[in-house]
Order: sequence, then structure tokens, then C-alpha cells
Amino acid sequence: MPIQLYDLAGAEDARRFSPFCWRIRMALAHKDLAVETIPWRFTEKAKIAFSGQELVPVIVDGGRAIADSWAIACYLETAYRESPSLFGGGAGEALTRFVAQWVAAAIQRGLFPMLALDIYDRLHEMDKAYFRRTREQRLGTSLEAAATDRDRRVVGFRDSLAPVRLMLKEQPYLGGPAPLYADYVLFGAFQWARCVSPFRLLEDGDPVGAWRERMLDLFDGLARRAPGYV
Amino acid sequence: MPIQLYDLAGAEDARRFSPFCWRIRMALAHKDLAVETIPWRFTEKAKIAFSGQELVPVIVDGGRAIADSWAIACYLETAYRESPSLFGGGAGEALTRFVAQWVAAAIQRGLFPMLALDIYDRLHEMDKAYFRRTREQRLGTSLEAAATDRDRRVVGFRDSLAPVRLMLKEQPYLGGPAPLYADYVLFGAFQWARCVSPFRLLEDGDPVGAWRERMLDLFDGLARRAPGYV
Repeated sequence: MPIQLYDLAGAEDARRFSPFCWRIRMALAHKDLAVETIPWRFTEKAKIAFSGQELVPVIVDGGRAIADSWAIACYLETAYRESPSLFGGGAGEALTRFVAQWVAAAIQRGLFPMLALDIYDRLHEMDKAYFRRTREQRLGTSLEAAATDRDRRVVGFRDSLAPVRLMLKEQPYLGGPAPLYADYVLFGAFQWARCVSPFRLLEDGDPVGAWRERMLDLFDGLARRAPGYV
Repeated sequence: MPIQLYDLAGAEDARRFSPFCWRIRMALAHKDLAVETIPWRFTEKAKIAFSGQELVPVIVDGGRAIADSWAIACYLETAYRESPSLFGGGAGEALTRFVAQWVAAAIQRGLFPMLALDIYDRLHEMDKAYFRRTREQRLGTSLEAAATDRDRRVVGFRDSLAPVRLMLKEQPYLGGPAPLYADYVLFGAFQWARCVSPFRLLEDGDPVGAWRERMLDLFDGLARRAPGYV
């Protein structure tokens, strides 16, 4: 029986846009594990109550439920240790933690105001009021006001990618010669944007864009095939 | 014969403040290698011409010269593979590259304007004109003007440390349970500040400050014993 993944969806079942769920989609593919994804909406808290918390991703593997993308990655690494490693050892795991916190604090925090209105527009009706209320509180402004500012915000966002740009002069992936979980963590942020928004995040010729293309190609174009914007 | 390290010094031979040289001081101690440091000033290009370039750190080990902190760390890792690892394997090395670029782009770039005038004040007379000319060009303003702005700049600097602060909730070092080269890379930036400037970078109670204290304690207080400011 394949691993089940509760995966955030928009109005259409096929639109899957959670950056944290994308980390796990890519991690499962990296470990060559079959997955059955179950579309889930923000307000369907009851549907994942069995996991003891209210957020996705949640996976169920052989009757065991695991929530939280980091905990899931660590579970997969341990439970499927014969499959290609996500971390490349203990030091790799520790440093990937840092990358994950950097993506959260510097990248996703910068992206969210630029994407929030586009996310809202693509949500299932059942989620719209909940999303607007909770996210406007987080943003301290309306979804619409956050979006109008994005031509200015994107400059700072591009600047925040400088460490990746510099690193890509020396190696093709965060993981080195091949992608590791650290790459999936960062890629999740880009896939979040791609699946909900036509807004252009990177300038032509940005090496980060070339890396993103390589990521979209992985696993027979798993992420490229997902409904989204070019 | 110990490894020789050409190490940037200020007016006094004992004031060693290069963030890149500190990475190597810590890396050599991590590998339990004896070192003889040779004080060097910015304008003593001729003294390290044998290395084929003009910047420190430069090490000489058994007649072989290696320049550039990253190249030196990789050399030490390979040449002294029996000693404790600096990277913890290939994935660790690749991810440490990312950390190094993050420190360069987000941390040292943010620190430099706040420290530049204090560095200048502590330089040997032979270096002062060179440093002022080259660094004012880089800053696009005078050393004095950059310093007056630092109470405002330090707020952004503290914010840029958010990924470290979040990570420290989960593990005591970037390297995990014990420090690795990634820790020395970040620590070099703090030691740069500590060795030239009384300016307070962190707020009381910041977990990054507790990490810095642990780093200062390493190797019998190697970095704490260096002339600097508390």
C-alpha cells in the first residue's frame, strides 16, 4: 500500500501549492516511494485530527501517522535507509536544519505577502473566509494591499537569494553534485509560487532560475507537470 | 614544523581580526594541528606573493602554500583526514558552501559598514590610507558616515540572524551536537567584530549570544583570549 500524503489543495483537487507538502512530494520521489495524495483544505481540520494536530503535510505509512515536514523527512530517512539519503549523514542533516530555517525566515517570509492574494483567488470556497481572516492578521494588512506592493518587494526577495546565487557558481545543487532535501526545502518555496501565481519572481538569466528548471525536471518532471504558471 | 598561517594584524601584532583567518584558526584547532601565526598587514602584498595572490589567510604546510579560506579548509580536510572532520562528509561540505555564501552575503556584508571605522582605528599606520581608500570606494561613503548609521543598521543585522536563532532551538551548533566548519565560518564574523569594536551587536538573552559564548570557550578559550572587546 503506498504512503498516503494529505496535501493542501485549491479550488481544483489538482492544484497543490503548499511549500511544505512539496518538500515531501520531492522527498518521497527522491526515495523512490509510491504515494497516494489526498487533497485537503485548510478548514478540514477534522480530516487530519488523527495526526494530533491541524496542519499538512501529514503522511500515513503502514498505519502510522507523521505530521510536520521536518519530522516526515527524518522518518523517511530512517525508515527507508536503503533508499538514497535525503541528508547525506548527520552533518548534512544538521546543516539542512539551518537551510530550512533560512528558507522560512528569509525566503518564505519574503514571498508570502507577494503571493497571498493569488493564493486566496485559487482557494476552495470553503477556505476563503478562514484564509483571509488568519492571513490578514499575520500580514497586518489586507491581502489586496500586500499584493499592490510586490513590484517593490520582489527586489528585496531577489537580493535575499544572493547566497544561493553565489553557491551555484561552485556547485549545481545545495546538496552538491546532486539534489538533497535542502534543495527540496528551497524548491518548495518556488513551487508554492508557481502553483498559484503568474507573478515573475526571478529576472532572466538568474542562475537561481536555471537551478529551478533543473528541479522542475527531476523525477520525470514531477513538479513541472503540476498545474501552475510558467 | 607547525603549519604557518599569515594572519591579518592591526597596529599591535597581537590584534588579529580577519574573519577569514579566524575560520582557519578555529579549523586548525578543530583538527588539533599546531600553528605558527605570522602577523601580516593589508599592504604587505610582497610578503605573500609566493602564494600567487594578495589576500590572507595563506597557510604554508611542509613547503606547500595554500590561499583562500575555503581552499585551506578543503586542504586540511583531505590532508588530515584522520583528524576530526570539518565538514562531516560530502553533503556536509556542499551545505557548508551554502552557509559560507550566506555568511558572506547576509552577515558580513551587513556587519562591514558598522565595523569599518573601528577597523580603521585599529590598523597599523602602514595600512590606514590603503584601507580608507579601498573601503570607502566599496561602501560608497566615508568610514565615518557608515559608522554614524549603525544604531539603525544593527536592527537589520539582528534580523538577518533569524535562521540561526530558530535553528538553535533545535540543536546547539550549525554542525549539530558539536561545532563544524560551518560554525567557524559564522563565528569568524563575530570574532571580526569582537577584535576591533566595542559596539554591541546582540541583545541580552539572544540565543545567538549564547552560541557565541560556547564558541569562545572552544579549544581552551582560543578566541576569547584574543585581544578584543567583551
